[in-house]
Amino acid sequence: MSLLFKSPLTRSARRFTCLTRSISNNRPHFPCVEAHALRESHIRKSGLSSTSSSSDDGPEPPYARPNPKSYHVYHDPSPLSLTYASLLPSFDVAYETWGTLSPRKDNVILLHTGLSASSHAASTPTNPSEGWWEKFIGPGKPLDTNNFFIICTNVIGGCYGSTGPSSIDPTTGKHYGTNFPILSIFDMIRAQFRLLDHLGVKKLYASVGCSMGGMQSLAAGWLHPERVGKVVSISGTARSSPSAVAMRYAQRSVLMADPNWNNGFYYDGLPPHTGMKLARQIATITYRSGPEWDSRFGRQLRQLPSSSTPEESGLPRTPALCPDFLIETYLDHQGEQFCLKYDANSLIYISKAMDLFDMTASTLKTLNLQAHRPSTLSSDDSSSVPPSQVMHKTSHSKSHPPPVNPPPYLPDLAEGMQPLAHIPTLILGVQSDILFTVEQQREMADALRMAGNDGVSYYELGGVWGHDTFLLDVLNVGGAIRGFLS
Amino acid sequence: MSLLFKSPLTRSARRFTCLTRSISNNRPHFPCVEAHALRESHIRKSGLSSTSSSSDDGPEPPYARPNPKSYHVYHDPSPLSLTYASLLPSFDVAYETWGTLSPRKDNVILLHTGLSASSHAASTPTNPSEGWWEKFIGPGKPLDTNNFFIICTNVIGGCYGSTGPSSIDPTTGKHYGTNFPILSIFDMIRAQFRLLDHLGVKKLYASVGCSMGGMQSLAAGWLHPERVGKVVSISGTARSSPSAVAMRYAQRSVLMADPNWNNGFYYDGLPPHTGMKLARQIATITYRSGPEWDSRFGRQLRQLPSSSTPEESGLPRTPALCPDFLIETYLDHQGEQFCLKYDANSLIYISKAMDLFDMTASTLKTLNLQAHRPSTLSSDDSSSVPPSQVMHKTSHSKSHPPPVNPPPYLPDLAEGMQPLAHIPTLILGVQSDILFTVEQQREMADALRMAGNDGVSYYELGGVWGHDTFLLDVLNVGGAIRGFLS
Repeated sequence: MSLLFKSPLTRSARRFTCLTRSISNNRPHFPCVEAHALRESHIRKSGLSSTSSSSDDGPEPPYARPNPKSYHVYHDPSPLSLTYASLLPSFDVAYETWGTLSPRKDNVILLHTGLSASSHAASTPTNPSEGWWEKFIGPGKPLDTNNFFIICTNVIGGCYGSTGPSSIDPTTGKHYGTNFPILSIFDMIRAQFRLLDHLGVKKLYASVGCSMGGMQSLAAGWLHPERVGKVVSISGTARSSPSAVAMRYAQRSVLMADPNWNNGFYYDGLPPHTGMKLARQIATITYRSGPEWDSRFGRQLRQLPSSSTPEESGLPRTPALCPDFLIETYLDHQGEQFCLKYDANSLIYISKAMDLFDMTASTLKTLNLQAHRPSTLSSDDSSSVPPSQVMHKTSHSKSHPPPVNPPPYLPDLAEGMQPLAHIPTLILGVQSDILFTVEQQREMADALRMAGNDGVSYYELGGVWGHDTFLLDVLNVGGAIRGFLS
Repeated sequence: MSLLFKSPLTRSARRFTCLTRSISNNRPHFPCVEAHALRESHIRKSGLSSTSSSSDDGPEPPYARPNPKSYHVYHDPSPLSLTYASLLPSFDVAYETWGTLSPRKDNVILLHTGLSASSHAASTPTNPSEGWWEKFIGPGKPLDTNNFFIICTNVIGGCYGSTGPSSIDPTTGKHYGTNFPILSIFDMIRAQFRLLDHLGVKKLYASVGCSMGGMQSLAAGWLHPERVGKVVSISGTARSSPSAVAMRYAQRSVLMADPNWNNGFYYDGLPPHTGMKLARQIATITYRSGPEWDSRFGRQLRQLPSSSTPEESGLPRTPALCPDFLIETYLDHQGEQFCLKYDANSLIYISKAMDLFDMTASTLKTLNLQAHRPSTLSSDDSSSVPPSQVMHKTSHSKSHPPPVNPPPYLPDLAEGMQPLAHIPTLILGVQSDILFTVEQQREMADALRMAGNDGVSYYELGGVWGHDTFLLDVLNVGGAIRGFLS
């Protein structure tokens, strides 16, 4: 078995040969299931040669061997207080930058990432590999480095250089694991603003983010309205829906059921790679849309290796229980690519932070947040006009009509979002997005307008790419951002 | 731990107490993860006292202890040839009936089930427990037992009395496991028609089914157009979409990754109950719709047991990584309820049969089907007018306009569905269904009309129940069926 893994050719053959009727001991075998054990054997071998700094010789996945030369790390020795009542005694924030900071430090765009992204949004001299938003950042691009100084961080809770569950807890000298505190989106912002303080950036030109980054972008404006010039939320939400919670819960469930997860304490052993693969397969379903798969894969089957094409017997090809339709091989591939790239606990903690994100006033009031906002923005702030009173004052127009069937919590959301009432905000969403639905884009725009914000730009995109549109549609997503920022 | 399981009270406390910060050995624990081991311990204990007929003393889940007095079993000693080139040497079909067979045997409705249902569609004298379509079957109900004799079977491949992977292979004396042949929806129909032959039923008054049952209903009309009077498809499809394949693939993947699955040979040991629970959680997401969850659960959290309500400290409640939002506890509960009720291999084989279902002519031609259709319906059948020629002859009207954006495979689908051209057909779908989308309902109706069928009744329902509407909306689903059948 382990020999198979050493040869790329044989390995590839293993993946694409799934003849459930190939019988040994009169029993079928399942290469897609065997792949889990093969992967484990591979991790064991590569782990023994890892340059782990741990006292244990246990194997480590790639994210545990970061290249600190490819990004900056801001270490803050002071505690970071958190939304849910505990704190981090100290923390690191990994970050990268593009463009030139102006002498007045007034050209800064803070770019927020989605769930599993690193700070590497675009290539840099120290890390020339392509970033996750390569086509959006650079001279003349939507985030134009001729004008702006762009900062992107790895979020707190992540595993790409910032403090997260895989980090060493300074109070114990061991990996945090699930002793890591539950995080909120607001906590990510607090850590980022400590970095901005360190860099001497008093006010952002704009806070920009996609997906979970859209949540962060709103949270930045909410926590620090005086320090955020503009807010951009692409395919984000102000209130995670039960459907999105359900889909992320399914991912966490399969991950936590992997015996390797070991209640989150796997850093000296094998990571829950099988659970991660299965979780990523589920996630991938939520990232694209049915119409894209219709046109891209349809009901096509994978090509069989020439050695195993069915005989010209007139018999139909026997379907396999392992990946057989192209859509299945696509999900399998996405899971396989991801399962060792990202820390399982980071996925659990950050996806939970997304679930918890809810800007309705009734929820925000229960959180440990008010103490961390400037006192000028307490509840007697002059901008805090009850939403019922501003409902008819807002700038509804032909392209911004009042909502026809507003959700019952809209006034509550408007009240919660009132600190953003004076920040020009771009909301952009995608009609084929099943994770951050277009209804959620509309409710964000409506809530901001109800809160008295007359600077809301709102766009919906069509197309078949679903949630991932923000990674793919440079023309339309990039165009809207360029127009809004200039 | 095992003591916990013996007390229902303590068990309930276990499920609803998920304090991730309750620390033993300074590490959090996770009741939702421990539940898997507790369940396993429970199965081991109950299994040892099972009345297993197996030579092995291994535990058996409830479906392996059927009550043959509560349904009929038709045993057919002759082989059943299958779509994908192999055969079953003999087979059983479990079935139940309601109403009275007319002397001419011309009042029979064959009711087809969804994926995991048994033949117990409604209560009977020998099994008074509520059936899965209880409100639809009975005197004066949509399937009116004053007029009709209704037959419902457990499909071939299932685990409720019909031959499936958990059955004993007569050629080896052992459970089939994954030596069971790959099935198609057409194979299920073939087995059912062998039962009809046995009962002396020459022609069905109607073939009725929901979800996978809708596929079967169409397949019955396709294989035996001369023996099917009317076809009803509720929330079915004529061609599984890549999205639906993706969602079922995700379920099979988590199931097959459960070490207990053991390549499908677990019948003498422990069933893959954890994989089944995780798979059912994913399935449940596809059965309902976001809008229902918005109104039913919103973002509500579970109630904490009174012993563990947070102190009045002013601190926010600490979120748990185990089920905490009501939507999470709902998915957890659905998975827990299902995981020992149904055979894992049946789920794998039947969900695969659903994925494979595709009535486009180009696919049907590759299958081992034509030999099993009456020779009068070969390709030179007079009803086989090319769809391109009938496109403009069909009964499009104001409520049945021609499709605006037909999928590119529509003519292919119309050609494939041509054997149904002369069978009055009811297509009913639900706009909030994410598994069998409304677009698929429209394409079925359009394809039938293109094939020359001028007896297509077509309805779409609104509402928030998604795919499960067929189980819940007696008024509208039942009303459409009643009107169509009378």
